[in-house]
Amino acid sequence: MMKKNAPAFLTALLLFSAAAAADPAAAPADADERDTLLQISIINALLEGRYDGIVSCGDLKKKGDFGIGTFDRLDGEMVFLDGAIYKVEADGSVSEQADSEKTPFASVTWFDEDVVFEAENIGSYEALRDAIDIRIGGDPNMFYAVRVDAEFEYVKTRSVPKQSKPYPKLAEVTKNQPEFEFENVKGSLAGFWCPAHAAALNVPGYHLHFLSQDRRAGGHLLECRTRRARVAIDVTPLFLLRLPATGLGGVSLEGGREAELKAVEQ
Amino acid sequence: MMKKNAPAFLTALLLFSAAAAADPAAAPADADERDTLLQISIINALLEGRYDGIVSCGDLKKKGDFGIGTFDRLDGEMVFLDGAIYKVEADGSVSEQADSEKTPFASVTWFDEDVVFEAENIGSYEALRDAIDIRIGGDPNMFYAVRVDAEFEYVKTRSVPKQSKPYPKLAEVTKNQPEFEFENVKGSLAGFWCPAHAAALNVPGYHLHFLSQDRRAGGHLLECRTRRARVAIDVTPLFLLRLPATGLGGVSLEGGREAELKAVEQ
Repeated sequence: MMKKNAPAFLTALLLFSAAAAADPAAAPADADERDTLLQISIINALLEGRYDGIVSCGDLKKKGDFGIGTFDRLDGEMVFLDGAIYKVEADGSVSEQADSEKTPFASVTWFDEDVVFEAENIGSYEALRDAIDIRIGGDPNMFYAVRVDAEFEYVKTRSVPKQSKPYPKLAEVTKNQPEFEFENVKGSLAGFWCPAHAAALNVPGYHLHFLSQDRRAGGHLLECRTRRARVAIDVTPLFLLRLPATGLGGVSLEGGREAELKAVEQ
Repeated sequence: MMKKNAPAFLTALLLFSAAAAADPAAAPADADERDTLLQISIINALLEGRYDGIVSCGDLKKKGDFGIGTFDRLDGEMVFLDGAIYKVEADGSVSEQADSEKTPFASVTWFDEDVVFEAENIGSYEALRDAIDIRIGGDPNMFYAVRVDAEFEYVKTRSVPKQSKPYPKLAEVTKNQPEFEFENVKGSLAGFWCPAHAAALNVPGYHLHFLSQDRRAGGHLLECRTRRARVAIDVTPLFLLRLPATGLGGVSLEGGREAELKAVEQ
């Protein structure tokens, strides 16, 4: 359970992290730049097995200080928090990544706290989604960055193992995904709500990754429980999609693929 | 039929137009900015009757020199060519627009000629699409700006009349759309190929508007015939979606709406 002085503690953590990990000179003051959600490639390309990294972590840091994604060859889950990019590998280990590391799929923004609230007695990931829905449900057609800070009684995550060519489809990879469970762990959830009209581009609905406060645990969020969480929402009215300069090829990438996505997101 | 010295003539026209209409100082040298297709709002919002202008023509000109769209209250068809923005009204009249005019839906980019070819004996809009398909069909998942310059034997266009609140849906408006036919007219087609994965965001496939060389005729392209056309294609790997800062509201805007789009595009 979170201590009573949690908000002050979190503020201190944020300030410390920003100073330690990010170059403040790189953060733009321009409102449009801060309100842009940059997305590398599209989810339907990842589902098809397009795992070759196309944008470096260094370039991601020029476009935000917050986000999620994966790495070259589908090597683990990315958590981009307070300006630092972490990889949660298939063995559960966590390490900060060099600027030269590349990603085939990521979503990043400059995180600004447009809405902040406390959610209590969160008995499941579904309950957390319901609590956030109340704040953004009035306009499910926008893109939102979501950050949750809490002491979690329980967190369940997964990661994905690095792949070799010819790459299998994502649904094949996640059939045998390594999963991790944590109890009484302080940490953050980072991720996004993406609208249904962008269903072929990103995961529609919520997509969150976890990173523990000690930066030693994390992964793609599957389940969580907490007595109290601090939830911050950043509305991003600008959505910038970067497709590979070499193209996406002739395979059709159209349509919302709800069933396929449900299989890989769980 | 186009004169034999057409390419040289077109080059001269382009140079003249750029000098006359656009501020060269505003055009970015940055490759990413030039390769960005900026889109204002999403097609599914326009289909639902969201016709209030949210971005000014002056702001569009900071993000490109080429594009198409419509105007506040669905007042006519926009053609953005060589840095100047024209409105084709429901009575067929054409006028250059002030920077203060606003749009609820538009797509713009800095037009760079990545691929240029001549298409001959184009007997229909379908034949023109087929001719362009050969060049971009290898990767239908990317966004492309398309410009066609020709002397057309025949062009058929339509426009849309300015609407009053409560706004009807777009399919209602286009049931009685004014249509225009032109013969032996020099001019340009401007517009885009948008991939099927963006079907809820923009019109999937080709969407072209016509503007005559004398800037006295134009509209949303319905049909055309020409013996010879100069076709230029600009690949735009970056796609920047700007949603209204006030949001898109609670009505679901998901999914590709092929039938509804087919009705309004014809």
